[in-house]
Amino acid sequence: MNGSPLRVGMLGFGTVGQAVARALVERGQDITRRAGRPIRLHRIAVRDPQRERPWWPDDALVHTDAVDVVEQGDIDVVLEVMGGEQPALTAVRRAMERRLPVVTANKLVMARHAPSLLALADERGVRLLFEAAVGGAIPIIRPIRESLASDRILALGGIVNGTTNFVLTEMEEGGTSLDTALDKARGLGYAEADARADLSGQDAACKLAVLASLAFDGWVPPDDVHVSGIEHVELQDVQYARELGYVVKLLATAKARDGRVEAWVGPAMLPRRHPLAQVRGVNNAILLSTEAAGDLMFYGPGAGGNPTAAAVLGDLMDVARRPGRGPGEGNGDVRWRVERRLDVADAGSVVSSFYVRLQVNDRPGVLAAVAAVFGRNQVSIQSVIQKGRGTEPVDLVLVTHEASYRAVRQVVGEVAGLDVVVETGHPMWVVGNAA
Amino acid sequence: MNGSPLRVGMLGFGTVGQAVARALVERGQDITRRAGRPIRLHRIAVRDPQRERPWWPDDALVHTDAVDVVEQGDIDVVLEVMGGEQPALTAVRRAMERRLPVVTANKLVMARHAPSLLALADERGVRLLFEAAVGGAIPIIRPIRESLASDRILALGGIVNGTTNFVLTEMEEGGTSLDTALDKARGLGYAEADARADLSGQDAACKLAVLASLAFDGWVPPDDVHVSGIEHVELQDVQYARELGYVVKLLATAKARDGRVEAWVGPAMLPRRHPLAQVRGVNNAILLSTEAAGDLMFYGPGAGGNPTAAAVLGDLMDVARRPGRGPGEGNGDVRWRVERRLDVADAGSVVSSFYVRLQVNDRPGVLAAVAAVFGRNQVSIQSVIQKGRGTEPVDLVLVTHEASYRAVRQVVGEVAGLDVVVETGHPMWVVGNAA
Repeated sequence: MNGSPLRVGMLGFGTVGQAVARALVERGQDITRRAGRPIRLHRIAVRDPQRERPWWPDDALVHTDAVDVVEQGDIDVVLEVMGGEQPALTAVRRAMERRLPVVTANKLVMARHAPSLLALADERGVRLLFEAAVGGAIPIIRPIRESLASDRILALGGIVNGTTNFVLTEMEEGGTSLDTALDKARGLGYAEADARADLSGQDAACKLAVLASLAFDGWVPPDDVHVSGIEHVELQDVQYARELGYVVKLLATAKARDGRVEAWVGPAMLPRRHPLAQVRGVNNAILLSTEAAGDLMFYGPGAGGNPTAAAVLGDLMDVARRPGRGPGEGNGDVRWRVERRLDVADAGSVVSSFYVRLQVNDRPGVLAAVAAVFGRNQVSIQSVIQKGRGTEPVDLVLVTHEASYRAVRQVVGEVAGLDVVVETGHPMWVVGNAA
Repeated sequence: MNGSPLRVGMLGFGTVGQAVARALVERGQDITRRAGRPIRLHRIAVRDPQRERPWWPDDALVHTDAVDVVEQGDIDVVLEVMGGEQPALTAVRRAMERRLPVVTANKLVMARHAPSLLALADERGVRLLFEAAVGGAIPIIRPIRESLASDRILALGGIVNGTTNFVLTEMEEGGTSLDTALDKARGLGYAEADARADLSGQDAACKLAVLASLAFDGWVPPDDVHVSGIEHVELQDVQYARELGYVVKLLATAKARDGRVEAWVGPAMLPRRHPLAQVRGVNNAILLSTEAAGDLMFYGPGAGGNPTAAAVLGDLMDVARRPGRGPGEGNGDVRWRVERRLDVADAGSVVSSFYVRLQVNDRPGVLAAVAAVFGRNQVSIQSVIQKGRGTEPVDLVLVTHEASYRAVRQVVGEVAGLDVVVETGHPMWVVGNAA
């Protein structure tokens, strides 16, 4: 009944790769039965084969060069779990040129090169699956790509970076500083030593670009996504947000508007009852607003070896049953027009409410001076609270009505020049009403 | 580039059928491009062709008999959106016997007949897709069946009936009685005139059976699922629950334990912070606990013409690209052992906390008498609150520690015999801790 084994050439053998190897041992029987054929690690590319690893598949042949694995004539699929742009991109491309289907967990490669890679997959009639590139274990790529293929997605928003969500949750619930929270994340294995791509929002921007490209049926280049990170979010901001009825999250969001796409990643205040406000720790969640299916949410662990391995294995089992159709026949997947580069609106033109925190000297007339700058720039103020009294300087916490991001940044720049203003914070997006 | 049209024989032309017809007009271009071929309604079976309908596809040929549509030699796929067991079952079977792939939204047919139908699909090498049978627009069948195919699902819980969730949300938030809430649901089109299948939990039980069968890789017969409905839930219960920190929901849940499956549907108290407690109105949500991927949640509109049509169309587009492999080759889908009938534990043996409300005469010694019955049956009491004072009778609200459902029902039966007890309520499951 069962067919020939699917011989996997795995590129990378870090957390995810090892979890895949382990799952193939532990759940191999079920996987074989369900997929209709065994899935076997046949070749593995690792940077340092000498390093001790708890799981080392006996039969797999080890290489130190990723492209080498692809060039061997004896694998049926390439599984790319090495991360980073190169040599992953070259290896993935080379694989499809050799008519090998590819499963990848690489958000960077998919975000930057989806148009050429998906075109290549279709041209060579092989499948290119990337469920694990966004949202870890959360099935989100397949649902958008297949289940919702008849629908129109109008907007999407998500928490797609587990590290920053862990940090923000710690700050919110534990009252710790960003640095302390980050240390804790590192201790628990939720953050790399170098967490810059997480903190800066770059990781989230890649994932958003992948999601938005599918959702809006065209390519959203990750570099066109406006990104700000959580590096400047202070415990004070998280606490003020809480008092105002909000939770601070690193939000990734995209919306189709007037033939363009508004897409940004940044720290945002969500009303406590907002579905994404409930997402704690390293979890991720993605909200889709669609024309026919309405509002959908997908929630789960956004990272980690086992969850990501589960996503990757689901894709491998899919390939085991259906590797593609061959050259000229396409790969049989739903056709998304990712070759069509979408026009991403300048973030400056995006309209939202904003949170602005200023440190000012507690003197009569301060508010008048600050308010005058807002008024001159047509940014109207929804609420203003002065925090602290008598101690110098004090915090002035402002929430604006809807205004363009450009205008609000202009205001903050001008306010910084007032001599009563000691320091200005970075404006934060405010999504929805806490009331 | 585009292939020949996929000619659909649609059985049923109610809310969902009409929404499908409309979507094929309004989003036909996108659907054709993404699926690689046009999807066309070719034949339609309707009970009463004379009835006025806002959408009536010009080209489709109309029949009054479902099997008739299937027996014509000129359709490529059967779309069953008529509901009910017969003649849907016969038509679906006949279709696959004629090697036609089938897309169905029919939870009753899938719950009762999944083993024979999936076996038939595999034998004839045609696909049988049923995303819309559970959770309306929420992609849940495909994620379980494909994305999580490598994983082990340990437990699942969900709110899978929109009507009852609307009613309970109204009771909770509007302070209305069940009957008033139900009338409102009918007025908004969220409930049928005959809402018995919803209120009794039978609809939810079918959906649970479908989910549990996939999740536990075997068949969970819907009649083996223990079902209680919300007919006996009173506004008072909802309000007491709230005071205790809970929300009342019609929960559908299944868990693998010791080689058997515990599966039940019933009104349950969920802690306010529980993810399913946040699900309001006609929305649905499904939580999965898995070995590798961890806890996942899927949320969205659980019913309605457009959402259900979106799910159905996603399946049709899937069939358009891949109808199956033909006899002897299987249909290419992940193999679930639905032919393996699972052993469903008797609900009496399921252990949980329970909520019990008693109406008693406010007299000294009442609590002692009631508590004695609990004690005699080894059911220990976590909390007891007397509500009202001076008016007769008063409510005694008890929450037990973990006990078997059998023991709790025994207790309630015995307590009913006490002469100080005026009335006994139905015990409600308490899931998790509100604290």
